[in-house]
Parts: sequence; structure tokens; C-alpha cells
Amino acid sequence: MGAPVTIALDAMGGDHGPSVVIPAASLALIRHPEMRFVLVGDVARIDAELKNDPQLANRSEIVHTDVAVAMDAKPSQALRRGRWKSSMWLALEAVRDGHADATVSAGNTGALMAMAKFCLKTIQGIDRPAIAAIWPTVEAECIVLDVGANVGADARQLVEFALMGAGMARALFNVEKPSVGLLNIGVEEVKGVDEIKKAAAALKESPLPLRYKGFVEGDDIGHGAADVIVTDGFTGNIALKTAEGTAKQIGEYLRAAMGRSVLSRLGAVLAQGAFRALKDKMDPRQLNGGIFLGLNGIVVKSHGGTDATGFASAIDLAYDMASNDVVKRLASDVGAFHAKLELEGAA
Amino acid sequence: MGAPVTIALDAMGGDHGPSVVIPAASLALIRHPEMRFVLVGDVARIDAELKNDPQLANRSEIVHTDVAVAMDAKPSQALRRGRWKSSMWLALEAVRDGHADATVSAGNTGALMAMAKFCLKTIQGIDRPAIAAIWPTVEAECIVLDVGANVGADARQLVEFALMGAGMARALFNVEKPSVGLLNIGVEEVKGVDEIKKAAAALKESPLPLRYKGFVEGDDIGHGAADVIVTDGFTGNIALKTAEGTAKQIGEYLRAAMGRSVLSRLGAVLAQGAFRALKDKMDPRQLNGGIFLGLNGIVVKSHGGTDATGFASAIDLAYDMASNDVVKRLASDVGAFHAKLELEGAA
Repeated sequence: MGAPVTIALDAMGGDHGPSVVIPAASLALIRHPEMRFVLVGDVARIDAELKNDPQLANRSEIVHTDVAVAMDAKPSQALRRGRWKSSMWLALEAVRDGHADATVSAGNTGALMAMAKFCLKTIQGIDRPAIAAIWPTVEAECIVLDVGANVGADARQLVEFALMGAGMARALFNVEKPSVGLLNIGVEEVKGVDEIKKAAAALKESPLPLRYKGFVEGDDIGHGAADVIVTDGFTGNIALKTAEGTAKQIGEYLRAAMGRSVLSRLGAVLAQGAFRALKDKMDPRQLNGGIFLGLNGIVVKSHGGTDATGFASAIDLAYDMASNDVVKRLASDVGAFHAKLELEGAA
Repeated sequence: MGAPVTIALDAMGGDHGPSVVIPAASLALIRHPEMRFVLVGDVARIDAELKNDPQLANRSEIVHTDVAVAMDAKPSQALRRGRWKSSMWLALEAVRDGHADATVSAGNTGALMAMAKFCLKTIQGIDRPAIAAIWPTVEAECIVLDVGANVGADARQLVEFALMGAGMARALFNVEKPSVGLLNIGVEEVKGVDEIKKAAAALKESPLPLRYKGFVEGDDIGHGAADVIVTDGFTGNIALKTAEGTAKQIGEYLRAAMGRSVLSRLGAVLAQGAFRALKDKMDPRQLNGGIFLGLNGIVVKSHGGTDATGFASAIDLAYDMASNDVVKRLASDVGAFHAKLELEGAA
């Protein structure tokens, strides 16, 4: 990419609004000093924060609006009230109109997805957008999708998720043919996962730019079994939250165990560097951000309750996606895939 | 219960057969010296192990068979070949015919479920049996079901799972009205979980012996949000394995972090008591055993690859279920529930 990456930030989204979003932009700017921002929201509140960082102020354009989407708004309601004028909408519009390369919002997921679909539209050839998460593994990281955009997915959608996940992995992990696994359960007698079986057959046969690795089970995800793990949004969301909950639970066990005797407390003091490394590794803020895939534009959803460190990770992710031109590459992959399908259908 | 509990063990099941199953029975007998066993399998191999524990030999009856169900047999195949004569079948038959109060097998899950349904039959009024798992939480433990007997579940089945899980919680956790949560995802815009919504409505209104707590998300399970978490077998299996995988992954991070410097290694030595406590807490062998619920008899499935400690936990679980008369109580709960439904239908 020649031009510097510009990220549009929904400054009013999330539990804390500009007081988190603007300091997060400062953090991200340290890492990518050539970045530019479009900051959308209440100009007075944004300015109050920008005063602390003239460098950031220099590289930012402010788009004022006093409409913000409530964190508990229903998607249909948010769309009706917030379209054309809310900070969420205007940040998306900046991407649509080419003023920005990606949007980051910590607003309400449902509202953001509804507005993003309406504003940016789905990539031609993609049935439904998905939300992808970056999942830490013992090897490195993998991409899991869908983690909550849709309940259920048919075989075609699962194949599209595989294609989109692979495109994202190619851009972010720098692998030519990312490996893809389909999340399934290992119990032999079980029938009824017909859509997954059909998707498996399609992935096995079709000449996609990916290596299909077969079915994977829940414990394979963190083990690093594949670059991309494909599942429907219901299962993916529950798997993701279960993993987050388990990590938190073990953190509590660890704290309790280390405090139980003088010796163990002393050991904990000596090993505090190690614990810090472990804590960093398990810090959900390091991998904060659901990526909306399948739209004509990059949208990253940050956790609503995150702090500046977490929101800055979401900005980093948007930066990586934008500077690797993921949307253009995805659209071309999808186009090539559908062209091949048609050729095969015609043959 | 007056009479001592008798457990029928499929001595040939699992990766290691009698060399794990018989030492496991010895361990369990130390904890419950009044227990009795029916040991089903190859008499020569069983005897070879029993020689080491005359106490156990004294309290065991051996049922010989030289037919064993292969770990990779398909359920239909296992049923065709192993019915009437395999160690798995004869262990179930001992429960059906009243010679034992519960069965434990480390054999193939699909085959065990197929044979258990055929041999013991489903409790009247229950549509489909489920597999329940005991899940450690920061509070204590909870019961999650279904973790793999069925893919998908309709509203009626989910309500039955709630009823069965509550019955089990009442027996094992000693709470009069166990709390029950329905596993769901928190994304507002999502539609399509109609069966879960219908089950929620039924649980809210009906006068069941449980406290319905509403929807719970994946991260609520380990947090101890409810005594019983209800979901379908596909989602439950993936959640369970994802949690197991995450625990293993964090264990690896911890090992790596503690070995990274001299100080942290010294700290680890000092804190080794704490680490041992943590390891025990996270040891999957402590909670080894899927409980088949909804059958006219108690069946506990142990992990196939477990050791004697793990298999002994599965025996303990079978013992607890049997000595609390869970099947009889479940059948009466289900009967009362359906009677109420009929009354309401007639009103």
C-alpha cells in the first residue's frame, strides 16, 4: 500500500466513549506513526481528550455528531434511529466513501452488524457476513469463525466462511495456503450434522486456495490444529466464551493456590516475571476484536467494556487488515471460487 | 439404601482393559469398603489382576466372556456383534436384571449408548437419553448436559434435560431446588434459537422442582452461574472439549513461563505445593465420567484412555448415583411432570 492507512473510530461506542477511544488511538499511533484517523462523535468530548496528544490531533480529522447508538439498543431500533447520523454510522460511511480504510467500534455488536450490512453491503457472492475471532493457540494463533453473526449455517455458508477465514489468514499470518478445519464432535453414532458433512465434501474436492484438514474437535482449537476453524455462529460464540471463562477460572485457581502458604507466596514473588508473562499471554485485551468478514470494507468490533490497551489492539487489527488489503483479496478469492464453480457446473 | 451398592464393570473396555479397570476397583474399594463388584470379561486376564488384591477378589463376582467391543466399532456394528455376549452388554444386563446397581465402561461411547438404550430402555416419558458431565466451577461443580448423545434438541427435549439434570443435582449436590440455566448466546440480533426460547418459556412457567435462572453464556459455566446447564449434545460436546483444551493450553503456558529464568524456576520449586494443588484442581481424571441419563439404570462412561485413578473416579460417580437412587427419583420426577402437563392440558 502506498498511502498511509486511515482508520475511522466510533468515538462514542463502548462503555467509556472518547475517554477510552482517544487514548487508544494515541497508543496505536506510537506503533504505527504513519497512521491517520477519522474520529467520529461529540466534538467537545473528543477535543477534551485530544488536548493531551497534539501528535494525534495533527493526524486526525474530526466528524461531529451528537447522535450515539445506545449499548442496549436493538439492532432494528439502532438502524432506524442511528442511520445517516450516529457516530457508528458515520464511521462506517467514512469507509464506504473512501475516506478511511477501516472502522473500529466498541458499540453494540448487533447494531454494528446491522448498520455495516446496510452501509457497506455484502461482498458479491457471499451469502452472509461472519464475525471472525483471533484465538491464541500453543503454536501461535488461529482464526475462528463465525463467532456470533448468525445462528446456524448451511453447507454453502460454511464453505464461504472457510474461504473468508483463509483469506484473512493469508493476509495476517502470511501463509500461502492456510489450513482449515471444520469444528465437529467426535461421537461416532451421532447423525444430523449433515450440513457440516456436505461442507466437508465440498472443501475436500474444490480447488480453493487452502488446505482442508478435516474435522476438528473443541480441544483441537487451542492446540493449533489449523490456521482457520470454521463453525456456525451459535457454536463458535459458545466455544469462544467457554474458553474465555475457563481461562479466567484457572487464573482464579492459580491466585488462590499461590496465596495458600508462606512458601508458595515467596515462590510467587520470585516467579513474578513468569507470572507477568503468563498474564500477558492470557490477557484478553491482547486479542481484542471481532472482525466482520464478507462486507465491502473492514469493520472491527472491540469489546464494549475494554480499556485503552484493549481498544488499541482492535485498532492494530484493523490496521493489519487494511494494510494487507484483505477486502480486495477476499473479493477476488470469492470471485475466482464462484467462477470455478460455474465452470464445473457447465462442464 | 440398605443393601451395599454393587457396580458392574466392563473389564475389557477402554484402551487398557483389566490392567486399568481392576486396579481402579481396588482404589474405589478403599474409599467405599462396603461396595461389591461384578467384573465382566476374560476371566484369565481378570484373575491375573485380582491376584494382587484378595480383598477385592472377595467382594467380586466374575462373569466370563471372550467377546469385547472394539474401541473403533460403529454403534450399529457393535450392537449386532456384541449384543447378548460382549463384556459391555453383560455389564449392562447385570443392571437390567438387578444383579448390579450401576455399570461403568471405558468402551466406545456410541456403542455403549446404543447398547444401553437397547438393554435398559429409556425411562417412560423421556424422549431421548442425554450424557451429563460434571464441570468444575469457581464455586464448586455444576452438571452440563447434553454433552454428546444427540445433535440438536427440540424444546421438549431441552426441558427433559433440565428435569434430568436437576434430578441428578438434587441427588449429588444435595440441593432441594437446583438452579438451571439454558446455554445461549448473547448477541441480540440473532434469531433462530426458537427451540431454546420455547424451552425457556416452558421452564419459566411450569412447576418443576427447580429454579430456572434464564439464559447463560459460555463464560458463565465455569463461573458457577447455575447447578445445571442445559444445551444440545453438539454444542455441549464442543463447549466441554473447548474447556478441556483451554485448561491444557494454559497448563503448557504455565510450564513454559516457570522455566524461563533461574528466578522463576526457583519460585516454582518453592511454590510446588501450590502447583500440585492447582494440578489436582485441573486434573481431568478427578471428574472422569459421562453419565447417561434417562435410562432405566445408571451407566457411567469413563474416558477410554484414562488410568486407574481416572477410572476409579468414574466408579465413585456411579456409586454416588446408585446410593442416592437417582434413577428412581428421576422416573418419579418425570412422571409427576408429565402428570402435571396432562392436568394443565385437560384444564
